[in-house]
Amino acid sequence: MKNLPPENRNPLKIPQTVLHLGLAEVAQGARGAGVPVVEVDFVPPCGGDPRRMALLDELSRPALAARIEEANQQALKRLLTAQPHLVGIGRAREVVPGMRDDLFLHAGPPISWERMSGPLRGAVMGGLLLEGRAKDPQEAARLAAAGAVRFEPCHAHQAVGPMAGLVTPSMPVWILEDRGPNGADGRPRRAFCTLNEGLGKVLRYGAFSSEVIERLRFMAETLAPTLQAALEARGPIDLKTLFAQALQMGDEGHNRNRAGTSLLFRELAPALARTARDGETAARVLEFIHKNDHFFLNLTMPMAKLLLMATEGIPLASCVSIMARNGTDFGIQLSALPGRWFVGPAQVVRGLYFPGFSEKDANPDIGDSAITETAGFGGFAMAAAPAIVQFVGGTPEDALNTTRRMAGITLGANPSFAIPSLGFSGAPTLIDLRKVIELGRLPTINTGIAHREPGVGQVGAGLVTPPWECFHQAFEAFVAHAREA
Amino acid sequence: MKNLPPENRNPLKIPQTVLHLGLAEVAQGARGAGVPVVEVDFVPPCGGDPRRMALLDELSRPALAARIEEANQQALKRLLTAQPHLVGIGRAREVVPGMRDDLFLHAGPPISWERMSGPLRGAVMGGLLLEGRAKDPQEAARLAAAGAVRFEPCHAHQAVGPMAGLVTPSMPVWILEDRGPNGADGRPRRAFCTLNEGLGKVLRYGAFSSEVIERLRFMAETLAPTLQAALEARGPIDLKTLFAQALQMGDEGHNRNRAGTSLLFRELAPALARTARDGETAARVLEFIHKNDHFFLNLTMPMAKLLLMATEGIPLASCVSIMARNGTDFGIQLSALPGRWFVGPAQVVRGLYFPGFSEKDANPDIGDSAITETAGFGGFAMAAAPAIVQFVGGTPEDALNTTRRMAGITLGANPSFAIPSLGFSGAPTLIDLRKVIELGRLPTINTGIAHREPGVGQVGAGLVTPPWECFHQAFEAFVAHAREA
Repeated sequence: MKNLPPENRNPLKIPQTVLHLGLAEVAQGARGAGVPVVEVDFVPPCGGDPRRMALLDELSRPALAARIEEANQQALKRLLTAQPHLVGIGRAREVVPGMRDDLFLHAGPPISWERMSGPLRGAVMGGLLLEGRAKDPQEAARLAAAGAVRFEPCHAHQAVGPMAGLVTPSMPVWILEDRGPNGADGRPRRAFCTLNEGLGKVLRYGAFSSEVIERLRFMAETLAPTLQAALEARGPIDLKTLFAQALQMGDEGHNRNRAGTSLLFRELAPALARTARDGETAARVLEFIHKNDHFFLNLTMPMAKLLLMATEGIPLASCVSIMARNGTDFGIQLSALPGRWFVGPAQVVRGLYFPGFSEKDANPDIGDSAITETAGFGGFAMAAAPAIVQFVGGTPEDALNTTRRMAGITLGANPSFAIPSLGFSGAPTLIDLRKVIELGRLPTINTGIAHREPGVGQVGAGLVTPPWECFHQAFEAFVAHAREA
Repeated sequence: MKNLPPENRNPLKIPQTVLHLGLAEVAQGARGAGVPVVEVDFVPPCGGDPRRMALLDELSRPALAARIEEANQQALKRLLTAQPHLVGIGRAREVVPGMRDDLFLHAGPPISWERMSGPLRGAVMGGLLLEGRAKDPQEAARLAAAGAVRFEPCHAHQAVGPMAGLVTPSMPVWILEDRGPNGADGRPRRAFCTLNEGLGKVLRYGAFSSEVIERLRFMAETLAPTLQAALEARGPIDLKTLFAQALQMGDEGHNRNRAGTSLLFRELAPALARTARDGETAARVLEFIHKNDHFFLNLTMPMAKLLLMATEGIPLASCVSIMARNGTDFGIQLSALPGRWFVGPAQVVRGLYFPGFSEKDANPDIGDSAITETAGFGGFAMAAAPAIVQFVGGTPEDALNTTRRMAGITLGANPSFAIPSLGFSGAPTLIDLRKVIELGRLPTINTGIAHREPGVGQVGAGLVTPPWECFHQAFEAFVAHAREA
């Protein structure tokens, strides 16, 4: 058609549409001729890899497939019946299991100081300043390199942290409890997360200036005890119900948390006014929360963690229980193989950059916040948050399509998290490793972008996927495990 | 096709769609045969009425049409540049222009006690009890019938009120000011509205029991002064910016106000904690707001009123400046003819009823809240609030279609009120009387439904339109006016 003048290409004006399944470039000719092109998201099974096709066949044998199906249904049921509640605030050293004086927790899979990216190093340095172990950043870097503190993942301690995800012993943490039927050893499961610092120069993006440390001191000395008193007076807050409302108000719980923050604020403010030391203290705490629309993120994350902890240890469940990044590596875990990391290189985030910044400033993908996508919201519920495209790029239709695409690699829908724009269908929930491999479709994560140097902060936001390495390794391990199970 | 067995009706399986422009019943045959039917919303121009077609032709003559167009553009520009701010709270007697000790204001066009519906009568009786003019409901009814107080529309006093819309002299009212460039006589325009009482048994639905009167006393004695002190400390609140955010969070500003209420709560709470008499007072006031997701409605309404007041008095503007109902009559006013009511019978609302109630319990349409649709949100912005269909009936797709349909009878889009699900296009704004007449398409209003007896309260919510009488009369008057202008 390209060789005809445009007016002669379709003389009878018959409506034409090209259905396109091949390389993107091939459709350019038709598109250039003004013919609508429908892109079909077609990838050959297992990306055409014969070994993975054979392994997938092995998992598809009826007896094994039925057992996997049963395990997955159990995982989904456990996730859907979990009832995460916010029950209190405590100091990490006192409430996080396995926390020690010389231990710093961080986002993502395990990593040594030598391999840490700029923002994670910056956060560690800030942590040493906060804990009074270093008097200046130079000393902090020296101490960190010399092994003065140990580093372990948040996820190894029932905790999660956004971006650098640093948890040091003196930091206050939210305490969440699963009050559903899935307790471990007769006791409710717990998950933990620090309190969100706000935007600008903050520790989680690797900043460690005196304003950052002073803010963290205010949070420990004033914010946390005031909130704790209010929470005690008010009683536990059912986070699943609250988040269900937030999803009807344009949040997706990862990069849009304005509704959740507002609803939490409403739940806490009356008790806070009643129990605060004085009106001025109440006002300062309320102002701190009011100024930070991401305050609720540090509750959606441990809520997601609790939902996923309920799925851990089901031997043949083929779903993903953790996705997390430390700024260098991306790691995932499976419900069937708790504690075992499958790791690949963290990717560069594609998105919108703040004025003056570009992709060359960006640190690779960082933070435990991908736990939200793992639990079936965040990027997976983007259809609920059309306004988020102003932050991460694209159009509201892209947001709908992301949710629809994620439905293809998940085990089911979460009716508690209904998405109005999709006719109140539930958010797609629990990534099925087998579907990711078969369809060649990686999870979509929406996320903030940190500057690659310590101390700079956020430079943008956008979309990212895990590296294929994580899923290929996890798939091999799952098949080996399934053979023995 | 109907006489063939289903499997023979389309033996070649060619996709079939029926495009249907006629009576709804005609399409039933095709639909029954399983063929998709696309309903085209076709109405002959002016409903086929030759007189109105001739009048519309008269308005379409180039010289006059150009002047109307210019007037409408001016009206739209004035609405878009208005900047409604919440500036304070005062007692109606002291701040509402023309308020007197023996005057009660009510929703909708003027009406006498004799013609008032149950809920409006109930509210008047409650008002007499509140003002201490009657000692029981019987005495109140007797006094009202005997003319002890005068009745005038809220709209005649720059005020608006939801449902019965009663404003009595001692009630506290929000004070809003237009801080944009459109002041009247060099002073900013003001609009007024009472504070929202909450749900259940409330005066605006015609309830007047002691709990209703006690709540109104708490509002006057504790809620209003505490809020006023907080507002003074905080400074004016830009309502257009706040509502723009609420529209991105699933509100449409008439029957969904959860986001607006939450955002207002956040704006007020810190200053309130700082300025309240004591922590307990702050807590009680915050609890009162927190328990009522419609608290913000009584601010979207006077905000809408201020936007529309900016359009009043433009001689050839063909847009609607007021739609309001008193429970018996529906009245509209035009920007070109301020102060002149065009009235017809209030309609029955179609929607969802609370358990135990049905259409036979329903009072006809009541309240000034249709000012929200008049200003280009509420039902006109339903696309922003897909979750509202759980309250008023229908599907999220219906909500999108309502907004699209209203775009056909409005002068333009309001870019300040962007609707994410429609690609951030602005809410359709300013109803053009000519388009309503030409297309035969009435504005869609979403609204609460009051029980027809005084004292019962809300029984449901749904969709309603004005009666055609209002628009036919207004059209005749506008043409007569245009001939002279």
